[in-house]
Formats: sequence, structure tokens, C-alpha cells
Amino acid sequence: CHREFGECRAMLAGAGLLLEAFELLESSAARLGLDPGEREETVASVAAAVGGGGVVGGQVVDLESEKKQVDGRTLEYIHSHKTGALIRVSCTLGARLARADRRTLEALAAYGEKIGYAFQIVDDLLDELGDSRDLGKEVGMDKARGKATFPAVYGVSESRRLAALAVEGAKEALAGSALEKDPVLAGIAGFILARQA
Amino acid sequence: CHREFGECRAMLAGAGLLLEAFELLESSAARLGLDPGEREETVASVAAAVGGGGVVGGQVVDLESEKKQVDGRTLEYIHSHKTGALIRVSCTLGARLARADRRTLEALAAYGEKIGYAFQIVDDLLDELGDSRDLGKEVGMDKARGKATFPAVYGVSESRRLAALAVEGAKEALAGSALEKDPVLAGIAGFILARQA
Repeated sequence: CHREFGECRAMLAGAGLLLEAFELLESSAARLGLDPGEREETVASVAAAVGGGGVVGGQVVDLESEKKQVDGRTLEYIHSHKTGALIRVSCTLGARLARADRRTLEALAAYGEKIGYAFQIVDDLLDELGDSRDLGKEVGMDKARGKATFPAVYGVSESRRLAALAVEGAKEALAGSALEKDPVLAGIAGFILARQA
Repeated sequence: CHREFGECRAMLAGAGLLLEAFELLESSAARLGLDPGEREETVASVAAAVGGGGVVGGQVVDLESEKKQVDGRTLEYIHSHKTGALIRVSCTLGARLARADRRTLEALAAYGEKIGYAFQIVDDLLDELGDSRDLGKEVGMDKARGKATFPAVYGVSESRRLAALAVEGAKEALAGSALEKDPVLAGIAGFILARQA
């Protein structure tokens, strides 16, 4: 979008879609007959995941960290906020609206957090090692921009181990919940680790 | 903000504040005890004023129009969306939440539309004729960027006449409503026309 239409238009498209998301959330909440408390919690959980305490906050720290030596803790902050928060809320929002029990919601939140973490490690690895034809985007961009990445901080093989561990953890998080044997959730977790593109 | 912290951070701050606005709107709606219909209408009216059918849409057409010959109709579209829509919804939102009657809401919507229009004309005139020390920002930027402006399309004296006409119209819009003699609303309208900074 930013290459085809320019950065300004791309940013405006993002702002426009953000607003449509909240309109949609609001009209869906009305259709689902949520009570005021559920409604507020739903909107607040999405806004928190995207805003200064979520995606926006992670992106700011990511920018601050460019061309600097970054430790594992900062890296974790960036990724748990930049991608983790939105993946986590995406995993729980439907269940919350369907009035899932507390145990299921907690399982989904832990699952979402761990697949989000794995997703980001794999994304960093693919940028470092992947094939730009498979990925459909240029590789090596993180290094060129001096970005904080998992391979830069932990090395390639330790990053692979951390991603596999997170995916195992995601599957374990579902154990004992109603979703323990859910093939789609297990499949998504496995796919995140295996993807080459 | 964009000069001090760079464009990326400024855009992120904008996105973060947008999200905070919707969180605030949602928690205020809960505190005020709005029913689901009122709540949806409130959120939708703000989202519509800011999104693709409002500020974002006006800004996109503004960008498309740079360095082009623009007619009065396009200019009106840009400004009624870029600034008009948000000023209009700001004028009606509180009254809506206070459950003002229909006549008052219509009067405020018309008032907001007209002061928004006047605000934009005066803004264009100040960029063309104002003093950068008074304004606290550079002048002549619209011309330098090839922007569609009222003085460029209508000339300076016709633009002044249009602004005065809009402010008169704003005051007239309140006539016959409960806000007819409201000194603050009349004062704001007058200030928009008179401001030099």
C-alpha cells in the first residue's frame, strides 16, 4: 500500500480501517445483545491491545531501539506489544463474546501469547535466512535497518529453540481446557513454526 | 510533534490518541447509562466524522488535489470533510449525550457546519496573508505545496466575504432554538472570523 500509493495515503488507510473496526465492534456488540459491562470490556480490550499499551507502544520502542544494542528484555517488550498483544486479543475475543468459561479464556490468552511470540521469532528468522521469492518481500531488511531481532540477540539456533519451545507451550496451555484436542488451534501453532513464507 | 520526534512517532501518537478517544467514549457511555442504541449512534457519529467519510476522506482528496487546478466543489468537499465533520460532531455530541431535543441538535449541527467552514476559510487566508510570528508557524506553506485553498480559488476579498457569511449563518442557525442567545456559541463564531493567530 505505501509503495503503490505513498506513505501518507497508506497511513490514512490505516487510520480509516481502525475507525471502521470500532464501528463494526460497536454494531456487533449491539446485535449480540452484550450488556454495558461486557461491551465496555470488549472495546477496552481491543483498544488496549492496539494502543499505547499494545501495538503502538511496541512500535515506538522498536523505533527507539533501531541501531542500538538491545537486550533480551527490551526485545521481549517490543514483540509482546507489537505483535503479541493483538494476536492474544484476537484469540480471546470470539470466546469472550461467546461467553466461554474462565478456564477456556485463560487457556486461549496463554495460547495467543505463545503463538504470538513464536510468530515473531520465526518472522525474524525468515528475514535473516528466508528466500525473498518465497516470502514475497525483501529479506535482510531488519539487519539493514539495525533492528532488534531474535537472531541478532540470541543467534539462529537458540532462536529456533525458543520458537519451538513457545509453540510447545501454546499447545500445553490448552491442556485441561475444552479446547485441548482442537485440531485448528494445534494446526495454527504448528504452522507458525513450519512456515517458510 | 513531527518536527520534534519525527513523522513515524507523530503518526503513532495520533493512532494511540485515536484509540484512547474510543476507550474514553465507551467508558463515558457506560457511566452515563446510555442505552445500546444511543451508544451505537454516539460511537458511529464520531467514527464517521473521523474516518473515510470524514477527516480521513477529506485528507485523501486534499492530497489528490495537490498541484492541480481545483474547483469550488472539490474545495468544499475537502474542507467539509477534513475539518467540518469533526467540528460539527464536536458541537452536537455533548448535546446528544445530554438528550437535547431534536430542534436543538439540528441547530447545533448547522452551527458546527458553518463555523467549520468559516474556520477553514480564515485558516487559508492567514496562511496567505498572516504573520508567521503571530501564528507560531510558517506562512505561505499552502502555496508552496500547491494546495487547494479558498484565496486560490475565489481570491482574497471574496474569501473574506464567504467567511463572514458563514459566521452570520452560524448565528442564524441558532435562532429559534434554546441556544439563540448563548453568549459562548456566538463568541466562538465571532472569534473564528476575527482571529489573527
